[in-house]
Amino acid sequence: MTTPDFSFTLAGQDGQARAGLIATAHGKVPTPTFMAVGTAGTVKAMTADAVRATGAKIVLGNTYHLMLRPTAERVARLGGLHKMMDWPGPILTDSGGFQIMSLAKLRKLEEKGVTFRSHIDGTPYELTPERSTEIQHLLDSTITMQLDECTKFPATHKEAMDSMELSIRWAKRSRDAFVKRPGYGQFGIMQGNVYEDLRRHSAAALVDLDFEGYAIGGLAVGEGQAVMFEVLDYCTDFLPAQKPRYLMGVGTPDDLLGAVARGVDMFDCVMPTRAGRTARAFTSNGIFNMRNARFQDDSRPLDENCTCLCCTRHTRAYLHHLFRCEEMLGPMLLTIHNLTYYQNVMQGARAAILNKEYDAYCADVRGNWQRGPDA
Amino acid sequence: MTTPDFSFTLAGQDGQARAGLIATAHGKVPTPTFMAVGTAGTVKAMTADAVRATGAKIVLGNTYHLMLRPTAERVARLGGLHKMMDWPGPILTDSGGFQIMSLAKLRKLEEKGVTFRSHIDGTPYELTPERSTEIQHLLDSTITMQLDECTKFPATHKEAMDSMELSIRWAKRSRDAFVKRPGYGQFGIMQGNVYEDLRRHSAAALVDLDFEGYAIGGLAVGEGQAVMFEVLDYCTDFLPAQKPRYLMGVGTPDDLLGAVARGVDMFDCVMPTRAGRTARAFTSNGIFNMRNARFQDDSRPLDENCTCLCCTRHTRAYLHHLFRCEEMLGPMLLTIHNLTYYQNVMQGARAAILNKEYDAYCADVRGNWQRGPDA
Ligand SMILES: [Zn+2]
Ligand SMILES: [Zn+2]
Repeated sequence: MTTPDFSFTLAGQDGQARAGLIATAHGKVPTPTFMAVGTAGTVKAMTADAVRATGAKIVLGNTYHLMLRPTAERVARLGGLHKMMDWPGPILTDSGGFQIMSLAKLRKLEEKGVTFRSHIDGTPYELTPERSTEIQHLLDSTITMQLDECTKFPATHKEAMDSMELSIRWAKRSRDAFVKRPGYGQFGIMQGNVYEDLRRHSAAALVDLDFEGYAIGGLAVGEGQAVMFEVLDYCTDFLPAQKPRYLMGVGTPDDLLGAVARGVDMFDCVMPTRAGRTARAFTSNGIFNMRNARFQDDSRPLDENCTCLCCTRHTRAYLHHLFRCEEMLGPMLLTIHNLTYYQNVMQGARAAILNKEYDAYCADVRGNWQRGPDA
Repeated sequence: MTTPDFSFTLAGQDGQARAGLIATAHGKVPTPTFMAVGTAGTVKAMTADAVRATGAKIVLGNTYHLMLRPTAERVARLGGLHKMMDWPGPILTDSGGFQIMSLAKLRKLEEKGVTFRSHIDGTPYELTPERSTEIQHLLDSTITMQLDECTKFPATHKEAMDSMELSIRWAKRSRDAFVKRPGYGQFGIMQGNVYEDLRRHSAAALVDLDFEGYAIGGLAVGEGQAVMFEVLDYCTDFLPAQKPRYLMGVGTPDDLLGAVARGVDMFDCVMPTRAGRTARAFTSNGIFNMRNARFQDDSRPLDENCTCLCCTRHTRAYLHHLFRCEEMLGPMLLTIHNLTYYQNVMQGARAAILNKEYDAYCADVRGNWQRGPDA
């Protein structure tokens, strides 16, 4: 058996919404897909078996966290991130840039790259496009992301242009540093803030570099869903139809439905996992706070439409009890459920796109969110 | 199918060490057995599936914790503790007495029972032998424990006698309050501190009440292993051979081996679960602290003799990384391993007893503990 090339195949389309299949060295990913965030080599509160049981086909690792601990070189010595975290399937890693800007101390951005100090112990580091690409190679990442600068929001046209131009120069350097291997891919990241001409320019420059896929960066940074959807309305068109499109750091289930309608194929977000640790449940009947006393005698499953471990074995009352007692099993079970719910929404979207009924699907899913816990 | 009576059958004996089988309404428990502690209706950091995968056949619930949250009446409304925590197998509950003395505030011991205030919110409660028995019935506990007073250590002969006599009066009241049901049992608790005459007297009085099993209380409270073994040397003889014997709150794997050699069948302890959350690993080569930097590049499994999820899927280096990053998966995986190790030690003990080679088994297991992490 030879390793397949990295590829993306369109299986169906309904309006702008796409159903596809990404083939990689580590397995296939039906799209649209949501990537569970495995920050430091673990999806928080989940065993890898539990992540698989949610239906997840690809997970995301954070270069920033992993380069600090356990370090990229150590991950490589341990046989790569797949082996270390018991996830033989596809892994996408971010470039580290975004988290340096949100977490690291004394960060300094220059043409060459970023220097910063670790938020943990102050150790100084430098991250260049070349080093970011090398780290992701050491991690054995299936999908490497270019180093980019995520433009702040709001930004003037001039600020957004300068930042976007830097990201393009870094895209070129990242692409040059990327070692092509069968079944592995690298994604460029479109920037340009909320300016259509900049988004168009950014996309065109990245397409010239012929990445295996394209991310849409610089959204979900405070602009709100309406503006985000406006930008998506035009900017997915700037990207080639035969490559996967990844909207970074998004979002709520409603964000996902809307972005899929606008031609996005891939997502990642800490929302379902973080919410799972703080008692917020994403369900087919809306978002519940499991700490609410209304659930203390509620013997129904969290979500009657869900077949996850949490919903098939336990009651809302038990979940409430676990969070009230601050038992670890509360976050564990609710993370399982939330990730399963996200996967179910994406699987439902894919089926609906293939059946050419995506709008009706979205209307149905959104309608059910209004029902609330007593439906 | 009719529910079997609660029974204990001896399957083999080697010296004082016994291999047996407890049959209950909720399933069978081969002995010697270690009961995982499921304090508030959850074995901390474990799904019920994960607890089952360790080989555990019976878990313990804490009446004190459960009577405060979610309350015994609420557990009953939810269908009992088995259903609530997804553990259809046997459950033993303690009486609440021991934890009131170690956790509750403003506690006051009288002939009638104990009054105390919750350590969580100060709510006043009363726990009598009758109420403790009723609570355990509401929880649907397979094995109910009598309310007793755990004598402090050290105690004079007079103090130990007075306390032991109170426990006998409470044993009678607990026994009277117990509603007999097929396959359910109630255990009396022997007290008497380190005084042989008191232990003998306590045991005789309990045997008159014809409990389904007998616990040895008041040990592992600071007297040290040597004194504990001295007391066990004589006191298991005071208990009927045809009933199970349960040493409460014990202990290290070494304590378990020594107590089995002295005729004990059942154990419970927070040690393997608590250690799992604080990076202490019980392995066939001894106890390791997984935070130790010696493990940061150690690509071996935690314990080569173990088939648990932690040992078959991950390296010591990964465990070290998880604890260093304070990721929940560290406690989750190490609790899985520690409980599996305890179960393996007990299963090995049972097989050795049946083969009449228990001493050799203990020598072998203890010898391996000296090998250390680099064996
Ligand atoms: Zn669920
Ligand atoms: Zn293990």
